[in-house]
Amino acid sequence: MTVHSKYIYPFGGSAPKPTVDPSKQIVGGKGLGLQVMSKIGVDVPPGFTLTTTLCPIYAKENDLPAEVWKGVRDNVRRIEVDMEKEFGSMSMPGMMDTVLNIGLNDVTVDGLAKATGNERFAWDSYRRLLDMYGEVVLGIPHEDFEKRFDKVKEAAGAANDVDLGVEELKTLCNEYKQVYVEQGKEFPMDPYKQLYACVKAVFGSWMTPRAVKYREINNIKNLIGTATNIQTMVFGNMGDDSGTGVAFSRNPSTGENVMYGEYLINAQGEDVVAGIRTPQPISQMKEVLPAAYAKFLENVEKLEVYFKDMQDVEFTVEKGKLWMLQCRNGKRTGVAAIKIAIDLVNEGKCTQSEALLKVEPRHVEQLLHPTFSADALKSDAYTKGIVAKGLPGSPGAAVGKLVFTPKQAEEEKANGASVILVRETTSPEDVGGMWAAAGILTARGGMTSHAAVVARGWGKPCVCGCSDIVVSEENQTVLVKDTNEVFKAGDVISINGATGEVIRNVIPVETPGLKGGLETLLGWADQEEGVMKVLANADSGPDATQAAENGAMGIGLCRTEHMFFNPERLPIVRRWIFHTECLDDLDHIKHFQRSDFKDLFVAMNGKHVTIRLLDPPLHEFLPRPEQVHEKVAEELGFGKDVPRMLARIESMHEENPMLGLRGCRLGIVKPEFTQMQVEAIMSAAADFMEECPDTAKVHPRIMIPLIGSIKEYKNQALLIKQEAERIKAERKLDIPYEIGTMIEVPRAALVSDKIASLVDDEDGKPLCSFFSYGTNDLTQMTMGISRDDSNGFIPKYLEMGIFEDDPFQTIDEEGVGYMVNHSANLGKRINPNISLSVCGEHGGDPKSIEFFDSLGLNYVSCSPYRVPVARLAAGQIRVKRRMEAAERRAAHPHGVADKARDLGLAVVHKIEEMIHQ
Amino acid sequence: MTVHSKYIYPFGGSAPKPTVDPSKQIVGGKGLGLQVMSKIGVDVPPGFTLTTTLCPIYAKENDLPAEVWKGVRDNVRRIEVDMEKEFGSMSMPGMMDTVLNIGLNDVTVDGLAKATGNERFAWDSYRRLLDMYGEVVLGIPHEDFEKRFDKVKEAAGAANDVDLGVEELKTLCNEYKQVYVEQGKEFPMDPYKQLYACVKAVFGSWMTPRAVKYREINNIKNLIGTATNIQTMVFGNMGDDSGTGVAFSRNPSTGENVMYGEYLINAQGEDVVAGIRTPQPISQMKEVLPAAYAKFLENVEKLEVYFKDMQDVEFTVEKGKLWMLQCRNGKRTGVAAIKIAIDLVNEGKCTQSEALLKVEPRHVEQLLHPTFSADALKSDAYTKGIVAKGLPGSPGAAVGKLVFTPKQAEEEKANGASVILVRETTSPEDVGGMWAAAGILTARGGMTSHAAVVARGWGKPCVCGCSDIVVSEENQTVLVKDTNEVFKAGDVISINGATGEVIRNVIPVETPGLKGGLETLLGWADQEEGVMKVLANADSGPDATQAAENGAMGIGLCRTEHMFFNPERLPIVRRWIFHTECLDDLDHIKHFQRSDFKDLFVAMNGKHVTIRLLDPPLHEFLPRPEQVHEKVAEELGFGKDVPRMLARIESMHEENPMLGLRGCRLGIVKPEFTQMQVEAIMSAAADFMEECPDTAKVHPRIMIPLIGSIKEYKNQALLIKQEAERIKAERKLDIPYEIGTMIEVPRAALVSDKIASLVDDEDGKPLCSFFSYGTNDLTQMTMGISRDDSNGFIPKYLEMGIFEDDPFQTIDEEGVGYMVNHSANLGKRINPNISLSVCGEHGGDPKSIEFFDSLGLNYVSCSPYRVPVARLAAGQIRVKRRMEAAERRAAHPHGVADKARDLGLAVVHKIEEMIHQ
Repeated sequence: MTVHSKYIYPFGGSAPKPTVDPSKQIVGGKGLGLQVMSKIGVDVPPGFTLTTTLCPIYAKENDLPAEVWKGVRDNVRRIEVDMEKEFGSMSMPGMMDTVLNIGLNDVTVDGLAKATGNERFAWDSYRRLLDMYGEVVLGIPHEDFEKRFDKVKEAAGAANDVDLGVEELKTLCNEYKQVYVEQGKEFPMDPYKQLYACVKAVFGSWMTPRAVKYREINNIKNLIGTATNIQTMVFGNMGDDSGTGVAFSRNPSTGENVMYGEYLINAQGEDVVAGIRTPQPISQMKEVLPAAYAKFLENVEKLEVYFKDMQDVEFTVEKGKLWMLQCRNGKRTGVAAIKIAIDLVNEGKCTQSEALLKVEPRHVEQLLHPTFSADALKSDAYTKGIVAKGLPGSPGAAVGKLVFTPKQAEEEKANGASVILVRETTSPEDVGGMWAAAGILTARGGMTSHAAVVARGWGKPCVCGCSDIVVSEENQTVLVKDTNEVFKAGDVISINGATGEVIRNVIPVETPGLKGGLETLLGWADQEEGVMKVLANADSGPDATQAAENGAMGIGLCRTEHMFFNPERLPIVRRWIFHTECLDDLDHIKHFQRSDFKDLFVAMNGKHVTIRLLDPPLHEFLPRPEQVHEKVAEELGFGKDVPRMLARIESMHEENPMLGLRGCRLGIVKPEFTQMQVEAIMSAAADFMEECPDTAKVHPRIMIPLIGSIKEYKNQALLIKQEAERIKAERKLDIPYEIGTMIEVPRAALVSDKIASLVDDEDGKPLCSFFSYGTNDLTQMTMGISRDDSNGFIPKYLEMGIFEDDPFQTIDEEGVGYMVNHSANLGKRINPNISLSVCGEHGGDPKSIEFFDSLGLNYVSCSPYRVPVARLAAGQIRVKRRMEAAERRAAHPHGVADKARDLGLAVVHKIEEMIHQ
Repeated sequence: MTVHSKYIYPFGGSAPKPTVDPSKQIVGGKGLGLQVMSKIGVDVPPGFTLTTTLCPIYAKENDLPAEVWKGVRDNVRRIEVDMEKEFGSMSMPGMMDTVLNIGLNDVTVDGLAKATGNERFAWDSYRRLLDMYGEVVLGIPHEDFEKRFDKVKEAAGAANDVDLGVEELKTLCNEYKQVYVEQGKEFPMDPYKQLYACVKAVFGSWMTPRAVKYREINNIKNLIGTATNIQTMVFGNMGDDSGTGVAFSRNPSTGENVMYGEYLINAQGEDVVAGIRTPQPISQMKEVLPAAYAKFLENVEKLEVYFKDMQDVEFTVEKGKLWMLQCRNGKRTGVAAIKIAIDLVNEGKCTQSEALLKVEPRHVEQLLHPTFSADALKSDAYTKGIVAKGLPGSPGAAVGKLVFTPKQAEEEKANGASVILVRETTSPEDVGGMWAAAGILTARGGMTSHAAVVARGWGKPCVCGCSDIVVSEENQTVLVKDTNEVFKAGDVISINGATGEVIRNVIPVETPGLKGGLETLLGWADQEEGVMKVLANADSGPDATQAAENGAMGIGLCRTEHMFFNPERLPIVRRWIFHTECLDDLDHIKHFQRSDFKDLFVAMNGKHVTIRLLDPPLHEFLPRPEQVHEKVAEELGFGKDVPRMLARIESMHEENPMLGLRGCRLGIVKPEFTQMQVEAIMSAAADFMEECPDTAKVHPRIMIPLIGSIKEYKNQALLIKQEAERIKAERKLDIPYEIGTMIEVPRAALVSDKIASLVDDEDGKPLCSFFSYGTNDLTQMTMGISRDDSNGFIPKYLEMGIFEDDPFQTIDEEGVGYMVNHSANLGKRINPNISLSVCGEHGGDPKSIEFFDSLGLNYVSCSPYRVPVARLAAGQIRVKRRMEAAERRAAHPHGVADKARDLGLAVVHKIEEMIHQ
């Protein structure tokens, strides 16, 4: 009697033990758990899994191969022998539905009644089978059964299911059979016919239009199909020596290494969930069912060792005998994830690399942002207090008084208040107030609007694009459109940046904190062989300090202009923009830039500090027309001539500032600004070196933005070099500096080989030592999407499945990623040692990090608050790659495939070289 | 005595005749003329050319090879024998300078005096040599000589050069020698030393930083170096049997086939130019020097036959003997170019293909646009009337009354007046007035601003970005900044769109017209084998008619939204934008679109009509805030609620509309608009087919704009197909239609193979039959440059040489061109028959057309007025390619190189295929 075939994997009882674990792809998650338990000697109710690979066959043939049906029969017979029972009732959990009690019919129901000594139980089981079979297999609407049920209950005067007696249940079974008759369907009395029909129903459900659509919408890919498990029933409700329970092998909230779960004596699984009786803590089972409990602890330990992870298990004790029904790696909070990962390593149950994979990015995020506690989220204060919902701009929770202007925010903050800054939309001038606020709420702007981007950079909660509300700065009110509820300045609200919810009450928050286990774990991640480094985007001393604390290996992007918005500096910057001939103002700017840059070098001592030259269009720094009055005009050098000043502002307006006079274009049109910035950078470095001659180690990297052509690069690089060498000579210091560029214009990606080839004609030395991919702008230009304006269609695109991810959050591999890859290859062809990195928002996104790792980039740079997530993701991908390689080697032990692949790639590279020569 | 070597090409006298013409690359333009004249038996003063290939040698060695110096001496001796003169004086025209009279010294000056019987002439020649040698060879400042000259003239009381006698000239020569002494330099008395030094000076000048920079700035490339010609002097001032002249073999203004030129008896070339004596018409030479004139006519005919083109020649008659000094193809006007080209074919002097190459795109432009006549351009009214200078937005000349609003323009035009519309900048709403104006002048906006683009599309003169003026619409004045001159409404001005000049006077204009010779010539261009087709961008019936008259083979781009600005339609469009749920308005739009589309089908009967679905962001159609008042608000469905309407307008504002909610994104978010447009297109086609069942042949091609990903394309293509098939079925007509896309987003270029692969899942048929490269937007996105805002740096970039051309005029081959090529290859790999074309501004630019031809595109589409230029350019490039191939075959007669190249390409394509699979 063959019980195992490529389509059928038996488990439990006399099932043969697999030597190699079957693939989850083939037997499904539940099937794999059953297989493993069976293999390592943990008792499971015997059964068998029909593989996912039968799905496409069924879809094509509308039936299963004859050998499979024979296998089913063979296996049922094997189970009958193992259990010394006849095929009575079985469970069959499929993709979405479970049909319990298969095998019951008008005859076997009596057998079950006798075997269990519980007639009510048998008829209740039969009633359930009739209902589930009708619905799942024959597609009879559930409400048809429900109506009969209500009728019987009414007749019996019963309020509840459990109030029905045996006779009523028998009546109900007859009523249910009537439903079949009315629908022109038949309930088969032959247990095998029931089984076959159920199997077919499960496999058939995979390709229904509804299921196909569901997978398409939810982007569920690379699944072969659903597996089907057929398993004998065991019963926990057979008396006081029986019971059932669910448990985690460790505390899923804290990670503490104690069994965590509940059980009920003389009950079935549903009863634990349904809450009719109060379950007991699992530890008390030791007193009541000591043997089963000991066995249970032993089983769970075996499973933890085998899966090298915390387990979430279900079990039933039938007449003193323990049966494990299901096992899987347990879900857990961030705090628990970190603790469990580290404990497992300390207990010798897994390696450091394996431990890395047990922590998810969202776990790290939980630890970094204040969040509402799980209890708070369930509270009425929260659930009934939700007044509006926007977009989840930046995760985390914040509670505070409503303020409507950045100035108010700063004042209230100075008074020690926690505030939520509400704006129609934010602009760069608001950053002072945004920094002061505990959270930010905007009525307009998408996930990549100014508010969201800035907030994410700071790890500050933000709900953006909340179109449910109307913000009136004038009246200092927030109006909720649907309800006309009005909030005024000073009212306290809470916002949930992870969900976009706005809540009217004070909801308690918690921040698990950054240090301790997380730092240990990320240290392991950093040590993974070949791991990409993680640097930070930081614009000021405090940012840089934060970044260093979060483990950033340097600064990958300093946006120098962020320092211009300081209220004391802004007028100077504005005056210079209006009167660029005035070198005093430029000198003043140099003065404060120099001091800021020094702060960066001090905070990042010994590490790279990459400073991007001025990037945004100048008009971004100008006052808005409504802010211009005589005093402002006078201060900014227009006498009191407001109209003239307005005309100047108007004349600087650009239709598409994203594609206008900015980046290196500014540096070329106004070389004095580039010179000034280089002088400030190099002087700052020199200042630090002179102050701390023994300890200071500076490494400035000057990054030219928005390069599109080699002549632009050469122009700026030579200017930078000239100025840098001048300062070096003047200060008599050997300041090691590098020049490189941000690749963010598609054209730059296309001519990257030429940029990498540029040399100084005077000394023949290369002029470009690094590329950093500015994937924000590269995405905007390659895809032709302004992130500020993407809210008009990206949400719709995501809903319709035209985009799988928001391309500003996760890199578009096919388009933008192609450009990065193309550029990286061109750059490396010229200079194998060129430093390649990413400094866009994608640098902090795990899925994107995985892609960048595959391109062989040297580092990613992201906001200080994303650094821990990025470090984890960068380490994890290395572990995964190593495991995949090991699997490939195991599958092809002689490494022929690897060698062939490497050889093929070498040939392709050679050919590419030839094509491009 | 060897006189010919690879570095020395002798000509004239006993010089050996070359069997193959030397390359212009090797002997320079002047050298080639001398070589050819020598070869075909036209007498030239004997001499020799030192080749350009000596330039790099000289640059390296700072000297010429000894064999060359020997060759120089050998050739001088050969000339001495030929001319029966001793090395006395010679001319040596170099790259930029000529040193005349080499060989004169304190001794030979007397010999020359005797030989010519003119002592004053000899000393004047010597004086000139001292000056030119000092300046060109030794770098002595010219003003040093000038000062001495003034001193001598003052002493002699002479007002002018010619007033100096022999003695004063002798004194001057001594003064000049003093200059040498003061500068510590020496004037060599040895004629050979003079010659050697001059040769070295010429070759040395090639690599001076100034010359290198000059070539870099002026984008002079692919030159090996300068050639040097050394030639014996002949003198036209040796009496009444001598003379000199310049002539064109045909009239360069009209093209008429009569000799056109001037001569002077007993004079030197300089005298003709200097205007001291009035030259005589060349025809009169027949009376005075009949033998020389007959010889001259014979020579010129020989040269015309040889060069197959009209000649511009210089000659000298020395004592009755005619010497030809120089010949080259003559410059000519557009009218002349066309007439000459056609006459040459009719006379059997060249083929139709060769004739094509004799007409330049600017010649065709001259014929298509009104221009100021050559005389007018030289008149005081013009030259002294220039009040300001802007950018040459659209070529042509216009004269008219100043108006400040589109409305005024339309009114004045209705009254029969010619007007110039002056605006700070134009916007789509101004098009009515722009159309009514004879010319457009704007104070802001670059070569690709709205005003310039629209004007070029219509062939209407435009001066844009004229920052010299301040336009006040309120005061109805134009203020010229520098002079404070003020022009008021109604004042008449002229503008020159070819130069950007604004002139205060009425300058006469002329338009040579479109028909006649030009049509013949373009007909020849169209017949060139493998020539790219030229289609037109046309948005309305009149546009389409104009395009057809100019020879467009169809419509390559109809921007349907251009029809929305009609004053009767705009309110309807606006109402729909504000209330998209209102289907009545949509129906109304469909109604007028359907009628417009029918006009296009009628005008282009039998040809392709490519219609792009709605492309610009909707807010482009909305009124500006200052235009909103109660009446407008009411008309547009806001009651009288102005604030609400303003809020709606504000809410539709986009930061970067170029990259916002537009193109297919609109069609996806508002599918009803796509459906409406498809219904209008297909219904219009059906209407025409029903009206003219026997003659109507429609071929609509529906083009989806701004595609970035395949899912966007599939969404819209299926919608279009569904709607088109519905109309076909309803109307019971087989309307052949195609669906394709504009490739304008860089990402679309990267996934073009995937777009070309898309099929309708229902019937398995391909969904995309054409790509049209929208190179305007593709340039904007690939280079990251908004053309509306490019004025802030592109002029500076062009000036600095960072850009060689304005990328919005001439395609950026390295960047944007790479994307087009990449996409075209991907598309053809999937579908070798896919139609590939360009419909951006570049489609009308000859240099860009050459590039597109090299990519194998099927057609270019440009504005109706550019169609003739594009047809010419497309034909020319085919002729050039054929000639190049013939040259290659001649050089490698067995065609091995061609075959090797083809084989190589085939291998590369195969490899590319493998890489991409």
